Amino acid sequence: MNEFELIHRYFKKHDQDVSVIKGIGDDAAIIKTSKGHNLVISTDTLLEGVHFPTKMSPHDIGYRCVAVNISDMAAMGATPRWLTLALSLPSFDQEWLENFSLGLFAAAKEYKVTLVGGDTTSGQQLTITISITGEVKSNSAITRARARPGDLLFVTGTIGDAAAGLSLIGDTNTLGEDEQLLMERFSKPSARIEVGQSLLDIASAAIDVSDGLFADTGKLLKASGVGGSINVNQIPFSRSMTNLYSFEKRQEFALNGGDDYELLFAVPESGIEQLNRIKETLDTPITQIGAVSEKIGLECILDNKKIEYEHNGYLHFS
Amino acid sequence: MNEFELIHRYFKKHDQDVSVIKGIGDDAAIIKTSKGHNLVISTDTLLEGVHFPTKMSPHDIGYRCVAVNISDMAAMGATPRWLTLALSLPSFDQEWLENFSLGLFAAAKEYKVTLVGGDTTSGQQLTITISITGEVKSNSAITRARARPGDLLFVTGTIGDAAAGLSLIGDTNTLGEDEQLLMERFSKPSARIEVGQSLLDIASAAIDVSDGLFADTGKLLKASGVGGSINVNQIPFSRSMTNLYSFEKRQEFALNGGDDYELLFAVPESGIEQLNRIKETLDTPITQIGAVSEKIGLECILDNKKIEYEHNGYLHFS
Repeated sequence: MNEFELIHRYFKKHDQDVSVIKGIGDDAAIIKTSKGHNLVISTDTLLEGVHFPTKMSPHDIGYRCVAVNISDMAAMGATPRWLTLALSLPSFDQEWLENFSLGLFAAAKEYKVTLVGGDTTSGQQLTITISITGEVKSNSAITRARARPGDLLFVTGTIGDAAAGLSLIGDTNTLGEDEQLLMERFSKPSARIEVGQSLLDIASAAIDVSDGLFADTGKLLKASGVGGSINVNQIPFSRSMTNLYSFEKRQEFALNGGDDYELLFAVPESGIEQLNRIKETLDTPITQIGAVSEKIGLECILDNKKIEYEHNGYLHFS
Repeated sequence: MNEFELIHRYFKKHDQDVSVIKGIGDDAAIIKTSKGHNLVISTDTLLEGVHFPTKMSPHDIGYRCVAVNISDMAAMGATPRWLTLALSLPSFDQEWLENFSLGLFAAAKEYKVTLVGGDTTSGQQLTITISITGEVKSNSAITRARARPGDLLFVTGTIGDAAAGLSLIGDTNTLGEDEQLLMERFSKPSARIEVGQSLLDIASAAIDVSDGLFADTGKLLKASGVGGSINVNQIPFSRSMTNLYSFEKRQEFALNGGDDYELLFAVPESGIEQLNRIKETLDTPITQIGAVSEKIGLECILDNKKIEYEHNGYLHFS
């Protein structure tokens, strides 16, 4: 099977969005846009052994690489629409590709996005690059850059699960239900599209938590030119986390761990009432974890005391 | 230098298109579209040792990876606008990155495109994936799929130069002017944007010649559900090619070689007069090399005789 047959076999049949005038199989994809909308474009690369363990199932890899890209759309409040896939494969393994594509399209279906093109090459290391284009009403997307002193900081869902789950993948012991749930949070992250869209007129800034709560909160504050604090006692943990790990270990997974793809966002005083109203309509819990201040830098507060915290988000080439 | 600093240093300063509401540095790029236009999205991956030789200069690699993506826009008649870059690097080499980014932005400036985002990772093999988004008037993009029997086939520029140039890269002999010109045709291909846009109301189908004239003509004909012929005697060769190589060798480079990024396109009888008019306004030569027929398959004609030709475009996993 050559690359054209491969694309036709695994990726072409799913091309069905009516706005896609031309999808896979030509030099480029042609897409009809709606008026009064902005496009939102994002790209993420996932490498085997770096962004996911070699033991991960191809279905989970396919699902996850879509979900983490969709998460960038969620963090902007955008509606994800079209994606392209660049796949470098060290070998041609039909079963792997089949399962990978099934996982990819499971996520594409769940998030209502259409694969519109891509490129498949033969490389030394399994490398997956997804580029996603979304839409959002003109001038309404939520960036990282508009948090202001006095805003409160919130997160969706529970934090640290994915990092705990990642540490369990490949564990040879018999794993219980809590362990399975945590591992699933790594392999099948939930992109918070619904929350992101609900925040369009409410949040002053948002980011998805991919490098750890500490690093990503720091990035949001820095982009906004402000400082802030995280109250570690307020970080929401899942029941599985609490069942399995000490508070110290949970805190480490949450602040340092990354891969959660929950949203962290800032809301000004004036938006809190509206936030409380929409909280009741959402399936995803939202928890206040801190506040924005004028003083540059990010502080952690534990038991009402400032603690020193080592910035340790995953950095390439650091 | 970590990946954030790296992106800021090498890729952020060039972000200047007024339609880019938010470029590099947030979760995604926000782009304002014009009404009455279609988006055109394309992705290409270039791997060291596969798509370009390890001896190629980083400036040339940067230039080339943009140009070959732009070429996909040319083949659709689209106007290229925004690109994202996913870069996997086996090591952090500041000088390499500096020169790579200079080459990339030289091409971006020449083709008036803006880098709006991307991802940088540390991988085993130098891997460059570019995703490009362009615009075209609604329902006017040129696909591969509408060539009809009786249409004539044309190419832009000269064919085979890039393949000849590639065979010379790393040659330790002292190389003359002709050799240098051919090597430049590989490292700095011209994307035929102006020609593509001129063909919007004229061509029935178009493709860029990346895998060799034989393979790419075959793809266009297949996508259109028709057959056709190439008259090998009519393939346009550059003076440098003619100075250096026999007709047999030139023919081999042209039909098999690939990497030219010239356009191959079909024009119906009714469009020939208009094509002749625009030919005079273009800097790029346009040459008729064949015709479309009803009978499925691609024939080559040499000295008025049909010849057998081995299909041999570069296929991964074949």
